[in-house]
Amino acid sequence: MDPYAVLAELGVTLPELPVPRAGGNYVSAKTCGNIVYLAGVVSQTPEGIVTGAVGVDRTLEEAYEAARLCAVTQLEVLHHYLGSLTKVRGVLTVNGYVNCVPGFADSPKVVNGASDLLVAVFGEAGRHVRAAIGVAALPRNALVELQMTVEI
Amino acid sequence: MDPYAVLAELGVTLPELPVPRAGGNYVSAKTCGNIVYLAGVVSQTPEGIVTGAVGVDRTLEEAYEAARLCAVTQLEVLHHYLGSLTKVRGVLTVNGYVNCVPGFADSPKVVNGASDLLVAVFGEAGRHVRAAIGVAALPRNALVELQMTVEI
Amino acid sequence: MDPYAVLAELGVTLPELPVPRAGGNYVSAKTCGNIVYLAGVVSQTPEGIVTGAVGVDRTLEEAYEAARLCAVTQLEVLHHYLGSLTKVRGVLTVNGYVNCVPGFADSPKVVNGASDLLVAVFGEAGRHVRAAIGVAALPRNALVELQMTVEI
Repeated sequence: MDPYAVLAELGVTLPELPVPRAGGNYVSAKTCGNIVYLAGVVSQTPEGIVTGAVGVDRTLEEAYEAARLCAVTQLEVLHHYLGSLTKVRGVLTVNGYVNCVPGFADSPKVVNGASDLLVAVFGEAGRHVRAAIGVAALPRNALVELQMTVEI
Repeated sequence: MDPYAVLAELGVTLPELPVPRAGGNYVSAKTCGNIVYLAGVVSQTPEGIVTGAVGVDRTLEEAYEAARLCAVTQLEVLHHYLGSLTKVRGVLTVNGYVNCVPGFADSPKVVNGASDLLVAVFGEAGRHVRAAIGVAALPRNALVELQMTVEI
Repeated sequence: MDPYAVLAELGVTLPELPVPRAGGNYVSAKTCGNIVYLAGVVSQTPEGIVTGAVGVDRTLEEAYEAARLCAVTQLEVLHHYLGSLTKVRGVLTVNGYVNCVPGFADSPKVVNGASDLLVAVFGEAGRHVRAAIGVAALPRNALVELQMTVEI
């Protein structure tokens, strides 16, 4: 399976690489052994951050799309960092943080936005363990933040 | 130390294996090298999810039990995934997310429900690093979510 | 680069080692392969916990200092656990949890308090991937909690 062919078929264009903000002394990706650790990325398009909170000013469907956007950004990070997505042997872990009102029960349905894309792009190797967590606040008031590790 | 003997002594029955919900494209466990990464599991019994939030409709004691239930579920996941709990060489990390009111200060006492069980079952090898975090919302309105890694 | 020389230059004294609280069955550090996993530590000085929440009773600047304190504590943990900070080959991951009001958008600026110190002490090797997350509640009502992994 060619990840780039899947992305083309899905009509997904890899966006510009996000750079650490606020003068952050951190990097987007770092490798130890055969695991690449990825910094958390927030939901954004080339036009800006997808902000808000589910149950305040955003719906479940909008949050699903935001989670998918996060996954697209991580693919872009990996594409730049590794040189090619074909070097990804599998997705290992995904932590999805969802900006939401207290008691929001459907964060797994939100994080599916990322999981569905990763499995579409990498097939069975894209299946991962994950945690979905609803939180009070995310960087730049983003709707979703996604943290990942992949195996190379 | 035989983990199954300890579980029998404690009167703990391993529950049915939880399956990913909401059509989630994820897996319960994935191995890289000698580390098994486990998906976050939420507090549940065979009767259903243990829901609620500490300080709203749940006490610290109820949340401790919920954290213990999460650990039991992870043991069941490992039992199915590895074939036997005796393959676990040690528990490495535990992240416990506690559904609670803002300002709840006792999440470590909650997560002890998981830590105490893991150390009872695996002895010194069950000691792990961990983080306890109070959050606004968990999947299916669960009281506790537990994410783990173990060494095999 | 000598991490102890940098710390002396910065006027940073490594504090007493924090011990797990509330009878917690966990450890401060555990190694698997060449990665040291560190338990989450909360913001504290020898005088006690730095408590509060950004937007309630704490400012961004106070939270930046609290994140820096967490990093100092992790250095102390590593110093005791490894025998010397010179055994750290690099910082791999940092997760910073910030106690804050819903919608607080500047958690990355808070977590910079930790990142800036780690890069000052370890240079390029101190650069790490990270996630900043705003949460409703932290152990002992701490202002910041920091979870890390390092490569040895």
